[in-house]
Amino acid sequence: MNRSFRLADIVGRFGGELIGEGETLVAQVATLASAGSSDISFLSSGKYRHQLQDSRAAAVILGKADREATDKPRIVCDNPYVYFAKVSSFLNPAPQPGAGVHPNSVVEEGAQIASSASIGPFCCIEKGAKIGEHAVIGASCSIGQNVRIGSHVRLYAGVSIYHDCVVGNNCIIHSGAVIGADGFGIAMDEGKWLKIPQIGSVLIGSDVEIGANTTIDRGALDDTIIEDGVKIDNQVQVAHNVSIGAHTAIAGCTGIAGSTKIGRYCKIGGSGMILGHLSIVDHVDISAGTMITKSIDAPGAYTAIYPFAPHREWLKNTAHLRHLHELAEKVRRLEEEIESMGRKK
Amino acid sequence: MNRSFRLADIVGRFGGELIGEGETLVAQVATLASAGSSDISFLSSGKYRHQLQDSRAAAVILGKADREATDKPRIVCDNPYVYFAKVSSFLNPAPQPGAGVHPNSVVEEGAQIASSASIGPFCCIEKGAKIGEHAVIGASCSIGQNVRIGSHVRLYAGVSIYHDCVVGNNCIIHSGAVIGADGFGIAMDEGKWLKIPQIGSVLIGSDVEIGANTTIDRGALDDTIIEDGVKIDNQVQVAHNVSIGAHTAIAGCTGIAGSTKIGRYCKIGGSGMILGHLSIVDHVDISAGTMITKSIDAPGAYTAIYPFAPHREWLKNTAHLRHLHELAEKVRRLEEEIESMGRKK
Amino acid sequence: MNRSFRLADIVGRFGGELIGEGETLVAQVATLASAGSSDISFLSSGKYRHQLQDSRAAAVILGKADREATDKPRIVCDNPYVYFAKVSSFLNPAPQPGAGVHPNSVVEEGAQIASSASIGPFCCIEKGAKIGEHAVIGASCSIGQNVRIGSHVRLYAGVSIYHDCVVGNNCIIHSGAVIGADGFGIAMDEGKWLKIPQIGSVLIGSDVEIGANTTIDRGALDDTIIEDGVKIDNQVQVAHNVSIGAHTAIAGCTGIAGSTKIGRYCKIGGSGMILGHLSIVDHVDISAGTMITKSIDAPGAYTAIYPFAPHREWLKNTAHLRHLHELAEKVRRLEEEIESMGRKK
Repeated sequence: MNRSFRLADIVGRFGGELIGEGETLVAQVATLASAGSSDISFLSSGKYRHQLQDSRAAAVILGKADREATDKPRIVCDNPYVYFAKVSSFLNPAPQPGAGVHPNSVVEEGAQIASSASIGPFCCIEKGAKIGEHAVIGASCSIGQNVRIGSHVRLYAGVSIYHDCVVGNNCIIHSGAVIGADGFGIAMDEGKWLKIPQIGSVLIGSDVEIGANTTIDRGALDDTIIEDGVKIDNQVQVAHNVSIGAHTAIAGCTGIAGSTKIGRYCKIGGSGMILGHLSIVDHVDISAGTMITKSIDAPGAYTAIYPFAPHREWLKNTAHLRHLHELAEKVRRLEEEIESMGRKK
Repeated sequence: MNRSFRLADIVGRFGGELIGEGETLVAQVATLASAGSSDISFLSSGKYRHQLQDSRAAAVILGKADREATDKPRIVCDNPYVYFAKVSSFLNPAPQPGAGVHPNSVVEEGAQIASSASIGPFCCIEKGAKIGEHAVIGASCSIGQNVRIGSHVRLYAGVSIYHDCVVGNNCIIHSGAVIGADGFGIAMDEGKWLKIPQIGSVLIGSDVEIGANTTIDRGALDDTIIEDGVKIDNQVQVAHNVSIGAHTAIAGCTGIAGSTKIGRYCKIGGSGMILGHLSIVDHVDISAGTMITKSIDAPGAYTAIYPFAPHREWLKNTAHLRHLHELAEKVRRLEEEIESMGRKK
Repeated sequence: MNRSFRLADIVGRFGGELIGEGETLVAQVATLASAGSSDISFLSSGKYRHQLQDSRAAAVILGKADREATDKPRIVCDNPYVYFAKVSSFLNPAPQPGAGVHPNSVVEEGAQIASSASIGPFCCIEKGAKIGEHAVIGASCSIGQNVRIGSHVRLYAGVSIYHDCVVGNNCIIHSGAVIGADGFGIAMDEGKWLKIPQIGSVLIGSDVEIGANTTIDRGALDDTIIEDGVKIDNQVQVAHNVSIGAHTAIAGCTGIAGSTKIGRYCKIGGSGMILGHLSIVDHVDISAGTMITKSIDAPGAYTAIYPFAPHREWLKNTAHLRHLHELAEKVRRLEEEIESMGRKK
């Protein structure tokens, strides 16, 4: 069970306006619908306002417009979702395993592991690798030669990082992620594919989170670059020599092809794809399921979703797509005919 | 080599009508085309009827309509594919490794492992975890704190299950699957993404199969839920707080975004995507490659496939898509002109 | 630091015409933009010709048309990219770890490991498995019963290969790849999905490369087949009983559904999907993001990309897609009306 805190202490720590009993104790965050008497909840969207009345939450975090929407003890602030995130992080600190290398791990000669770092069982830390202070490496991770891992980094079980890659401070990498595998570089030579050695690396900045089973390939010649504060969801594929600008967020199942440069503060929806050798400026939002085939030189939202429909209706409409050119030609001819009919009169 | 069984024994066990020699021995299942003299084959689609004649199968499983389609010893039944599935399972029982924990694994204090369970090498079973009777855990699996794994569960090599997740009885989880990684919860705060702690869990019912490298994220506040009998293929991404109803099947490479609720007995084709915060009723079939952008409140089949074509033809037709609004306007104007021409007369 | 080689030695080894000082020493390959004084660079596309002048490369590989495009010591050849690939491979040989089985690995009785093979820590090589000469198996790989792995194969950390699969000579398999997991075979029986045992295997030819977190399922009855020289990128899903012809290349995030047969020398773009039970001839190019729904019986390029646009423009155009049939009908009626108006005159 989490430790409890007084509402007044929370406001003392994170700001906002306290309304109601400051002695109210909260131990955990919860949704309005599932909160119990020791939970603090939040209202970030009007859509859930009807849940306020029935909620059993001990206290609520609200925006200024909802200041009087409840009688409960409450914290009024500018951005309730952000406030809630801070409270949740405070109430749910990541558990910190004890420092040291598990005896069932292998640390090769010349690897340097900070004394405050924790290395789980069945890890292989190859020669020349460096693991920073307070880093936590889960079970069965593989850290290649000369990899550098910053301080306060957390790798969950089963992460593989190939040789020479760099992971900045405060990064989180989830299970099954593979950093630094060879990019897909091949050249056709007399009926066979020749492999292009991938001699670049992957440079990951600080405060980056990388989802489960995501893959980020090493560069062919230069490096693949993930700047500070980038957040990448699960099963994303980042090809060789891609560069992702700071604070860009990429949702799950997205593929980014080789040598594409994505700006800062972009938001890329899930299951999309961005072709290779493109350049996308800062502050671009790409809808889920959208394929980007050309560079984007203006901020804004971009979309390419083919609308779904009941199968029978889809069939009826889609058949015409294969004849859209003919349809457009037909309309052009009709225009001409009508114009000529008008003229004849 | 598999043990052989008399056709009569198989009919005794699984029902159906035996026609021909019941002493016929079969040891394995095979397709009509590749069957040898100790194999039993099946015909589930008229498409393969021409292969019956040349098949070297010792016996065949057939539907009632195909009762006389061959002279071979045969089993006539209602659903030959289901019958075949049962015979195949009977002839090919999953090998059951010996009980016990491999000496090269780590079991933390307070973890409980049933005496009939088998734990392969290089597994890490953290404190508070429980592994059920006859469970088989492959090599290099990571089982987090307080995880509960039911009886007769099979985890193949390299599965990662984060803390507090629950896996019901008779589940199969394939290599590289990651259960319970953090959902993709972030909030923008003064130019930086704040991480929203993901304090929910993943609850997986019984008789669920989860494919290789599939990821199922833990809930942000409440839990992610996979009900009984759900079958999930490889490389599927299930985001936080998704709920998947019993007996729904999801093909490979599909992404399901956060908080979406999918009904029971749905069939979701591969490489599709379902956006977040949607609700899909029972008995919905979604075609492969289809993106679902709105809730679905009626059973049936839904599709959104952009038709492929030779590249040159695609180019010609697709160019008009960017001007579809203008085309529709043009047609509207033509209608008006024609109407006015008609009126003038 | 790499060892240096004389330009004349490189031409002696790989052919081409040497222009300029043959004593020039090069130690590494690099792009024109980032090359330093010990690097050899290349020009394979006119797009980068402007970088030649400022490049600090010691020498350059050029095509015949660019023979005089620089004064630097240079190698003129037919295909600069292929030549560069060969030079890069020569300058960057894959490190070969020492032979032998790491003491922290488990090799079951009856497994055969060639004396020149190298097995990293925390591997589990099950009974009956065979590992060929000069094979290098990274940390935490799981090699199932009776798996056969050819000579000079390299498995990076965390590869799982299920029982009975075969990997030919000179293959490279990246981290997190799963070979031989069960195909997605289920049959509905009285409200529950029955599992169809997957008793086929995966047969992988020689000179195949398989990307990180790619999954290749075992066959249901017959085998899944990957022929010689096939190159598969990251996060590709190959379903049961697929057959991929020799020298076909498949980019990342692509899904290939069950029993589809793909020809030789095909190129399949990323994030696409190919439905099941199709047949695709040799020399077919499929664009990225394209879904193939029917068999393809003629070589050539095929595409199905829905064009992206600024969100507002997309909304305006896409709305008409749901009424394309009505639009086409409208045009048909207009044609009739105009024709009848013409006739009346």
